[in-house]
Amino acid sequence: MDLQNQTLLTDLYQLTMLQAYAKEQMHEEAVFELFFRGPPETRNFLVMAGLELVIDYLTSLHFSEHDIEWLRSTELFQDSFLEELRHFRFKGNVDALPEGRIFFGQQQPVLRITAPLSQAQFIESRIINLIHYSVLIASKAARCKIAAPTKQLVDFGFRRAHGAEAGLMAARSCYIAGFQGTATVAAGQLLCIPLIGTMAHSYIQAHDNEQEAFEKFAYSLPQHVVFLIDTYNVEMAAHKIVNLAPRLKEKGIVIRGVRLDSGDLADLSQKVRHIFDEAGLTEIKIISSGNLDEYALQDLMQKNAPIDSFGIGTRLVTSNDVPSLDAVYKLQEYADKPRCKFSPGKQTWPGIRQVYRFYDEKGMMSHDIVTLIDDESVKGEALLVPIIRKGERVAAKESLDIMQQRFLNDLNRLPAYLKSLEPAQHYPVEFSAVQRELADKLRAEKIN
Amino acid sequence: MDLQNQTLLTDLYQLTMLQAYAKEQMHEEAVFELFFRGPPETRNFLVMAGLELVIDYLTSLHFSEHDIEWLRSTELFQDSFLEELRHFRFKGNVDALPEGRIFFGQQQPVLRITAPLSQAQFIESRIINLIHYSVLIASKAARCKIAAPTKQLVDFGFRRAHGAEAGLMAARSCYIAGFQGTATVAAGQLLCIPLIGTMAHSYIQAHDNEQEAFEKFAYSLPQHVVFLIDTYNVEMAAHKIVNLAPRLKEKGIVIRGVRLDSGDLADLSQKVRHIFDEAGLTEIKIISSGNLDEYALQDLMQKNAPIDSFGIGTRLVTSNDVPSLDAVYKLQEYADKPRCKFSPGKQTWPGIRQVYRFYDEKGMMSHDIVTLIDDESVKGEALLVPIIRKGERVAAKESLDIMQQRFLNDLNRLPAYLKSLEPAQHYPVEFSAVQRELADKLRAEKIN
Repeated sequence: MDLQNQTLLTDLYQLTMLQAYAKEQMHEEAVFELFFRGPPETRNFLVMAGLELVIDYLTSLHFSEHDIEWLRSTELFQDSFLEELRHFRFKGNVDALPEGRIFFGQQQPVLRITAPLSQAQFIESRIINLIHYSVLIASKAARCKIAAPTKQLVDFGFRRAHGAEAGLMAARSCYIAGFQGTATVAAGQLLCIPLIGTMAHSYIQAHDNEQEAFEKFAYSLPQHVVFLIDTYNVEMAAHKIVNLAPRLKEKGIVIRGVRLDSGDLADLSQKVRHIFDEAGLTEIKIISSGNLDEYALQDLMQKNAPIDSFGIGTRLVTSNDVPSLDAVYKLQEYADKPRCKFSPGKQTWPGIRQVYRFYDEKGMMSHDIVTLIDDESVKGEALLVPIIRKGERVAAKESLDIMQQRFLNDLNRLPAYLKSLEPAQHYPVEFSAVQRELADKLRAEKIN
Repeated sequence: MDLQNQTLLTDLYQLTMLQAYAKEQMHEEAVFELFFRGPPETRNFLVMAGLELVIDYLTSLHFSEHDIEWLRSTELFQDSFLEELRHFRFKGNVDALPEGRIFFGQQQPVLRITAPLSQAQFIESRIINLIHYSVLIASKAARCKIAAPTKQLVDFGFRRAHGAEAGLMAARSCYIAGFQGTATVAAGQLLCIPLIGTMAHSYIQAHDNEQEAFEKFAYSLPQHVVFLIDTYNVEMAAHKIVNLAPRLKEKGIVIRGVRLDSGDLADLSQKVRHIFDEAGLTEIKIISSGNLDEYALQDLMQKNAPIDSFGIGTRLVTSNDVPSLDAVYKLQEYADKPRCKFSPGKQTWPGIRQVYRFYDEKGMMSHDIVTLIDDESVKGEALLVPIIRKGERVAAKESLDIMQQRFLNDLNRLPAYLKSLEPAQHYPVEFSAVQRELADKLRAEKIN
């Protein structure tokens, strides 16, 4: 499934609506905002991620000749409209929460698009697709970081991520939320994320003898010797490593670590640590993996399991307890008029907004206020910042390390009651008086 | 995140193991099998999908110059090994369950790779990544088909799928499991899946007047007029359509349908149907969407909601009740010796196997038997069929319609107790005597 480009990663209705807007000459400026309803009970906060992917998408957006000819073949579009698509580019503005920042859902806008209606409408599907999953995983990974803040955390999730792009986006979001690396090679190549890896059970199984397998592997990759020790019997494997260590040491090879991938990790890690320490092999680190998530990490930390590094896979990259968030992208204003909808349970707030954050005297986050952008009565830290102006990037390109640092800074300012795996009371997000008045006014116009 | 090719969509350890195999001259033939543990309680059966994607991957697999230079930059690999990678191709055999077939997890092999060790090992991560998600979604979509077998079912999931590839793979898996189409344009372009779409709330909101929005849209796309009617008030919108219909009819425009995206769908669909039928507009179909899954469908069917078509999104494409399955790829034999592992809770069955299916006198599936491939005592329908031989495709390329027909055929032969959303007793999957004896023999050798 080679994608020529990302342009047709969209819903059909975006294109049929665009054709209608073209026919109706509806080209005035529209403002859309992306926000999250909720969040679910098991997320005390969310972490912004995916913005750089949105910038790449918007600044390269165009219909190829191939796309246009394919659209023609559907017989849904008129030739004049298809001709217009040849010149379709994103020439609008983007304001957004920078990646790594903590936010709280509750309909706070995290990304704002200001552009001629067709441009602002068309990009909805892919923008949600990019931001939703990036935020989903950064927010889950942040919980792992909270559960085991002093440990090395590594993304092991590629194989059970939902497709290739999910695997790459997960590696990226995990790194932003404080992980040290990933096992996914393409994420190293494309995103410069540090790669970390060990060996598979099949390597041990392909050899007739486990100790021989360890020794051969050590000679092949002497600078990164990590052995997987649960293929047959963990304690027996640990004793084989104790036997092997002096011979490797003679050749200048240091055993860096062992990996446990099954069983009672708290108990086995204690036993293995004891075997190695008794033999003076205190430098061997213990890495563990296998059905891990933030709850398993918290449990292992509470039991003081002597594990140095966690490889976290399936449950993290599928966000298994909450595999989706209620991310939406809504029209806030068109042709200078504020807009909203009143669908049951899905009402939106109208108008163009900014989010302001307030801190207490100790520098900890105290509350956010969402208000209309021209409301000068609210002072605080403005969270949405300029990213793209007239189709051109104005925000500096950032490394993932900068985003990670931004996340860690925000995590330090997150109140203690939210820095927990247990569901807490919602962080206070207030909607200003002018925001409420505008919503009431529109409701009166549309419903009554 | 442009992928040069799919080759580096793998875990780092695959490459470090390959380097070890190269150094050790371990080039003999290996057999790996992909299977699913479980399945979880809420899946009475699984549906095979993703094989065509695996064929594309294997038959185009190679390291580009760019890949090799990037791997060199990691300083993990020796030059002699990197030179060997230039010639790395998949030259092995693949046998697999064809797409659309029903299977049952329980460690039944669904795909077997026979190739020199390094080739068979390297492909593990991406093969699991492709098959796991494809099966996950086909199996969830099959439950929607069971819940509403007579209705039109459409994939609306792209925006909250986990990345672009997930969106495309979901559209594909849904179609295999009996869906009629997708809203994702790229899935129409790349996979020839029928496209179905309506309009968004923003279209209505961008107009000052809802009825005017309906009318303008009808003129723009007269051959596919479907109106979204829950932006402000559903019943008022239905009455506006009743007012509008004669004017459109004069111009030869027929209103095909309306979409409901929120609220009590059973109640609202009854009210809307009544309004339209009273006005003689019996031809207007009702499409519904919004937080749907197989349980919501079953509920609406039980209430006889007059809904003709369901657009199913987030909960389907994230398989929200079960966002992952326990799909693994294990070494079964190397250098003519059977292999297995005994990790606690993760024991595998050794040897090269085939799955045979048996039917009762009415042609319904009765049980499967898994046995070693050279066991001639078991007769039945052999489920794994030849797909690739020596790196070349031998199975004919199939359309998604053929796969869908295969699924519907199997669904007809699925016993009634499994054709339910309620968790049922497991379908009988037996492991033969020779399979058990081989496992016992290996256990005695490795553990004692």
